[in-house]
Formats: sequence, structure tokens, C-alpha cells
Amino acid sequence: MISHVELKTSGQGLYEMTQEIRQLVKASGIKEGVMTVMVQHTSASLTIQENADPTARHDLEQWFERLVPENDPLYKHTCEGPDDMPAHIKSALTDVSLSIPIVESAPALGTWQGVYLWEHRSRPHHRKIVIHLHGD
Amino acid sequence: MISHVELKTSGQGLYEMTQEIRQLVKASGIKEGVMTVMVQHTSASLTIQENADPTARHDLEQWFERLVPENDPLYKHTCEGPDDMPAHIKSALTDVSLSIPIVESAPALGTWQGVYLWEHRSRPHHRKIVIHLHGD
Amino acid sequence: MISHVELKTSGQGLYEMTQEIRQLVKASGIKEGVMTVMVQHTSASLTIQENADPTARHDLEQWFERLVPENDPLYKHTCEGPDDMPAHIKSALTDVSLSIPIVESAPALGTWQGVYLWEHRSRPHHRKIVIHLHGD
Repeated sequence: MISHVELKTSGQGLYEMTQEIRQLVKASGIKEGVMTVMVQHTSASLTIQENADPTARHDLEQWFERLVPENDPLYKHTCEGPDDMPAHIKSALTDVSLSIPIVESAPALGTWQGVYLWEHRSRPHHRKIVIHLHGD
Repeated sequence: MISHVELKTSGQGLYEMTQEIRQLVKASGIKEGVMTVMVQHTSASLTIQENADPTARHDLEQWFERLVPENDPLYKHTCEGPDDMPAHIKSALTDVSLSIPIVESAPALGTWQGVYLWEHRSRPHHRKIVIHLHGD
Repeated sequence: MISHVELKTSGQGLYEMTQEIRQLVKASGIKEGVMTVMVQHTSASLTIQENADPTARHDLEQWFERLVPENDPLYKHTCEGPDDMPAHIKSALTDVSLSIPIVESAPALGTWQGVYLWEHRSRPHHRKIVIHLHGD
């Protein structure tokens, strides 16, 4: 079963989509199986991170921003703006697709795990996510 | 088919779980298919790495420790100890879930590939891993 | 369904394999499902990146080369050459396996997404990739 989700973003950062994913699994009627979540862009990515203390996500974003700064003299690909090349690199360092087992009609996330879309561009975007669900 | 594996860790480092995975596939009776292995934590992760020379794993661990040091003044999320925020970042840089094809009743790993749980915390932990197997 | 692909590489860099993957899906007859692509090596990896402007890929390669240089005094695993340990680290930072939903008889890649084998070694290699396809 294929589902499509579109998320609006308003600048760089982590956008939680755990609830959307839980509802998709519930609506599918699948009790046990696996789902694959993939973002259809090269300047946004996916990650599973702590969904409790927001400072953990803040530090994560800040750390990546320092590791992959804008306006690095190394970049030749600058025509799409100073945030574009860092976006591609951050996408390569994190995940474009995630596979998550389904157990008891829910994604088998740990207690503190949330699923996030990671927007790496500064301007607002509509981000397309395609999800495959499979099981019984 | 869903399986649960629990691994005890005693400090940071790579813990091989290739044998556990091979045995799960064998016990499942699946000859051809795919498995998804997911760790249910945000301060431990998974990786596929060389299982021959242990110095390769040692260098990998040391390199990540240097890239993501403890006590970085950037961190605001410090309440869970100096090793907690580096653990979240290292998890984001590596893998929470791995999908591995099954061929001839075994995970289709290359000659030198081993599957590892990567513990990023210093204190001992019990780490839960959930595995979905599918095929014929 | 399992397929095997072998790619010849001639030094470090990104080698596009999107066409091979599209053809495998088409030949499989699967209209809707999911595929898992895994490289069976620990010194080459996979990534989904922009397939339009080649400078984006060039910058990505250069950035990783600067982050993970050869001849780092930290390395103890040097017996297989100066490019070997950087290769393992770059593999850990990127992807060994990718899961991609299949929609309308094609991998559900975004407009600008291409699938690449990332060769991290300097000498020519034959790289084995195993692909599992599943669906209706």
C-alpha cells in the first residue's frame, strides 16, 4: 500500500511527523509488517530522534549547522543560494529513507523515538514524502 | 515475522550482532526475502562495517569521538550527562534502521561485512532491537 | 525477487545507477511495492543525491574528502593503504542500504533524485550490489 504525505516547512529545522505515520499504520489495518518512508527531495531528509526534550533537537540542528556552514569557499554549486549546498551535504549525512517494522498495529518506535522531516532550506517548502506499507 | 533481540552493552563501542542475525534468518525458514533491523533508542545506532581487522573499528570509534566530543560549549541539552548529546548526534550520523536482502537463507552480507550495534553511552545499557523478516 | 548488479569503478566518486534501477523495476513487472538496494562492501556506499547540476556532486565529494582526510595521525588501520580508513568512515557516514518505494512501475524518486554508488577507494574496483524487489 502506498501513501503520500505533504508537509509544509517554514525554514530549517526538524518537523515531527510521528502522528501522521501512526495514523497511516492504523488506517492501513496492518497489524504486523514493515513501512518504508522516503522523502522525494535532495535538500531535506529524515531522521529518528528524541521527542522528549526540545533542547536535544536544538543542539542537533546547531551542531550540523556548524559542521556544514553556509558560504564555505569550497563550494562551487552556489547558484541556488548559500543554503543549497549545505542542504545536499546534510541530506547525505542523514537519511533519505527509513524502514520501520510495524508491531501491534503501530510503528515499532522506542519510547523516546520520534520521526522527523529535516528541512535544510531557509525558505518555505512543500515537501513530498512517499510511504510504502506492507504486512498482515 | 517479527523478532526481538536485546543486547547488553558495557560502554561505548561497536558490538557485533551478525551471528544473531544469521540465526534469525535461518530459524525463519526464509530462503529469499528482506529483513529490516531497527534499534529502538536514540543514543545507540546500527552500522555495517568491516569485521576482519579490529583496528578499523577502533579507528572508526575514535574518529567519531573526535568529531563529536563531549562537553562541547554548543550543547544546551546536558542534563542527561556529557555523553548524551554526542550520542544523539552520532545516531543521526549513522543508522537507526538497516534493510538487508536475504539470499540463500542468509543475510546478503559481503565477505567482510558485519552488522554492529553502536553504543554511544558510557554506562551499561540493555538495547532493544526489533527485526522484521519477510520472504519465501 | 533478487537481482545482482556489478559496477566497475575507476577511482573515488559518485557513479549514477538510476537507469539500472529503473530497468530492474520495469523488468520485474512490479507496479507497486518496495525495493532494497545494498552494496556488499565496507569501502563503498550508496546515496541519493541531485542528478542535475554536476557541481553539487563535486562539492559533496570534496567536502567529504576534507572532513575525512587521508593520512590522519589518528588512524592505526593503515595496512590497506591511505584511502582505506577514510573509506570505512565515509561508508559509516552515508548509506550501505537504501529502501525505495515502487509506484506506477518505477522507483518513487523525486524529480532531481538520482541513486549513486559512492566509491571511496582510489584504485579500480568491481562493486557488487544486491537488490530485493517486492510488490504486485
